[in-house]
Amino acid sequence: MHKSRVYAVLLDTPEPEAAAAFWSAALGAPAHPVPSEEQFTVLHEALPGLVTAVQAVDDTPRLHLDIESDDVEAETQRLLSLGAEQVAQWLECRVLRAPGGHLVCVIPVHSDPDLFESQARTWP
Amino acid sequence: MHKSRVYAVLLDTPEPEAAAAFWSAALGAPAHPVPSEEQFTVLHEALPGLVTAVQAVDDTPRLHLDIESDDVEAETQRLLSLGAEQVAQWLECRVLRAPGGHLVCVIPVHSDPDLFESQARTWP
Repeated sequence: MHKSRVYAVLLDTPEPEAAAAFWSAALGAPAHPVPSEEQFTVLHEALPGLVTAVQAVDDTPRLHLDIESDDVEAETQRLLSLGAEQVAQWLECRVLRAPGGHLVCVIPVHSDPDLFESQARTWP
Repeated sequence: MHKSRVYAVLLDTPEPEAAAAFWSAALGAPAHPVPSEEQFTVLHEALPGLVTAVQAVDDTPRLHLDIESDDVEAETQRLLSLGAEQVAQWLECRVLRAPGGHLVCVIPVHSDPDLFESQARTWP
């Protein structure tokens, strides 16, 4: 058995500064660059219960979800068995394309362990 | 003064049945077609505090946010003044493209009035 939960909504864009300024003002969410991960700008409490962040990408603008799991390999296999396809692997992040065409990343647990334990779903 | 809050995350796709089946299983969220609005399939409690739904579109797959407001015109003008551009109007929904390239829709209040009052932000 393993667990997973939706951890974050990522706003991917090749124009991260413009996006962060807009969404920070639009949602009333202070924008904080992430030290040591300069491609990310977190929008503090922009969405309830989820991390919201702008990510700089050399690609077309898109939103994607990050799913955190205590077993990235098992969670990736679960999503592949549901019809997703792996399109990339970046450090410990598996990038999958879901049926219907949306991207989703599977990442190791990033949230507080107590939060993860209380909110994650358990999969057989 | 007017108020607004993020109401929903929409998964737009030309393959709504495949997307709804995947995301329902992936997130453990029962999928419910919306009576009288057959382009929408709600994923019950897929994300905390937000409506999550698959929307059938004749376009490339994307995610977008819906912002609900008690004054759609004022909220639209606020977002335009922050740099968004209006790209479409569909019934009472204003479709805007934000700086950075993401879509956002401004819609009338859809959530419970008490929920809206307690969670919406007030803008001058």
